[in-house]
Amino acid sequence: MGGDHAPGHEIDGALAAVREASDRLDLILVGDESKVRALWTQRGGDTSAVRFVHAAQVITMEDKPTAALKDKRESSLAVGMRYHQEGHADAFVSAGNTGAVLSAATLILGRVKGVSRPTIGTFIPAEHGECLLLDAGTNVDCRAQHLYEFGVMGSIYFERIVGKQRPTVALLNVGEERLKGTEVVLEAHKMLEASSLQFVGNVEGRDILKAKADVVVCDGFVGNIVLKFGESVPSFLKAKLRQAADRSLLDKVAIGLARGAMRRALGVLDPNLHGGVPVLGVNGVAIIGHGSASPVGIKNMVLRAVEVAQSGLNRHIAAALEAPSTSVA
Amino acid sequence: MGGDHAPGHEIDGALAAVREASDRLDLILVGDESKVRALWTQRGGDTSAVRFVHAAQVITMEDKPTAALKDKRESSLAVGMRYHQEGHADAFVSAGNTGAVLSAATLILGRVKGVSRPTIGTFIPAEHGECLLLDAGTNVDCRAQHLYEFGVMGSIYFERIVGKQRPTVALLNVGEERLKGTEVVLEAHKMLEASSLQFVGNVEGRDILKAKADVVVCDGFVGNIVLKFGESVPSFLKAKLRQAADRSLLDKVAIGLARGAMRRALGVLDPNLHGGVPVLGVNGVAIIGHGSASPVGIKNMVLRAVEVAQSGLNRHIAAALEAPSTSVA
Repeated sequence: MGGDHAPGHEIDGALAAVREASDRLDLILVGDESKVRALWTQRGGDTSAVRFVHAAQVITMEDKPTAALKDKRESSLAVGMRYHQEGHADAFVSAGNTGAVLSAATLILGRVKGVSRPTIGTFIPAEHGECLLLDAGTNVDCRAQHLYEFGVMGSIYFERIVGKQRPTVALLNVGEERLKGTEVVLEAHKMLEASSLQFVGNVEGRDILKAKADVVVCDGFVGNIVLKFGESVPSFLKAKLRQAADRSLLDKVAIGLARGAMRRALGVLDPNLHGGVPVLGVNGVAIIGHGSASPVGIKNMVLRAVEVAQSGLNRHIAAALEAPSTSVA
Repeated sequence: MGGDHAPGHEIDGALAAVREASDRLDLILVGDESKVRALWTQRGGDTSAVRFVHAAQVITMEDKPTAALKDKRESSLAVGMRYHQEGHADAFVSAGNTGAVLSAATLILGRVKGVSRPTIGTFIPAEHGECLLLDAGTNVDCRAQHLYEFGVMGSIYFERIVGKQRPTVALLNVGEERLKGTEVVLEAHKMLEASSLQFVGNVEGRDILKAKADVVVCDGFVGNIVLKFGESVPSFLKAKLRQAADRSLLDKVAIGLARGAMRRALGVLDPNLHGGVPVLGVNGVAIIGHGSASPVGIKNMVLRAVEVAQSGLNRHIAAALEAPSTSVA
């Protein structure tokens, strides 16, 4: 109920997911039941194909996460997350207030054993392939242990969900040399090096869009800034192309002709392709989507939740972080 | 002598600078004198229009900065910086090893009174205008006091050199709210707020390419990563356009027709436009250029050095950082 286009996009996306994966998906819609039920029917959905769980309140994008969770215990977000925690659902998906979903996942589901700090990553499209950058903004002040755990969780997620055996893991840094970086990063480098991960050392800012490693580890301060900087690039390009077009009629014509091609070329930048990212390190499956997720984005989030729920991700995370071979003296 | 295209680009750029600004520029060329003198003459330069200072050694891009300065005391970099420090020149310009120029500036020139850490900024082109991001990679572990000083130095540089009265200063952060960020950033926020700067609060990663503030302050870890990420965007775009062209003949034709327009649109990304950035906070004028600076880039560095030398920048920095009104209890 709390996404930018809720519940319309949510219903349309859910409908598409049910149609695409009815064999492996038993969908539950949490929200204002009469509204959700009416919309589901109106869009052609079969009410016997889903379950409805009523939630009387909504956490909005403007709400402060922690306060909202305390004050709005009957919000679709809190009700849905509890429903998952109680075992009535195998996963929870939301395009609502990111901070609130994260807080709810951490507070209601609790942490996987061995995890100090749950994290969220983000997939960044690259020249070839993509990389998973984490933390993407959850934990701004990190110790080396946290960065190490992000590497472990990211590696397991990449292996289980993207399906690549022994993905490469790198530390985002200001140089490739091992003695570069802040004190925290230098310490994390040692821990990652001593781990059983496929650690390839440091990568620099310029290596992200080249996906020089599958998993790129950083603190949430750097991750958030890089992510948001990247998201602002298309708008910058548009502005510069418009300015060039205003300076020259010939350029205007050429740019106009190439507009469709450019849009297709940059289609990889569409955040809806991925359909959300999981909160890694919580005892459950919580997928967070972009607030403005399209119906396709919502559908992809739901299908991603199915995959994650079936992957045994948390079992692998707990095993990796409890194993003595991955820790450093 | 240590730039990627030295001394060819250096000579060509110096020649252009002398021709453009002979009234306010008295140029000194430091390096292998016979080589430099021969090249200067060969390119049509008048040997009476410049002075030559011999330096027998060269610090290369591969040299470790501090070790190189100790071992190569007769390098063009060390000789030139000392020549400046001794008062025989008003500024020093180099497109050589960035770390070595920075170390030489700090060690040979010393710090301006009140400055804890010299810094280097970088101009980032924006949708409209540009912003000065600093620190750009010099100081990876920063305390709040350092960030505060970067704000002061950046503001004075922007005011004196770009020529804008009371430029806006912002803190790069993960959210606009004043309580966002790491402990260091929260503390720096208080100091900047209490200062006499035109502080506009936090900006996010997405605000850099919009130049939401003239001066954007961050530690060198974040600054370096954002800067290098940004530098990798053109290559990413090229790769994606090439991939689109390979998928569709029509797109290939359209992209081919628009190539020139796109190049002109993105011309603002050319690092040679700015011709280097100064080391802020050292007792002198040291301008560092891109290792691969074109002759135009070199020329712009030299002209920038003239401007900075005439601006009284360091006097203003010392005054601002000594003044009690700019410090916080």
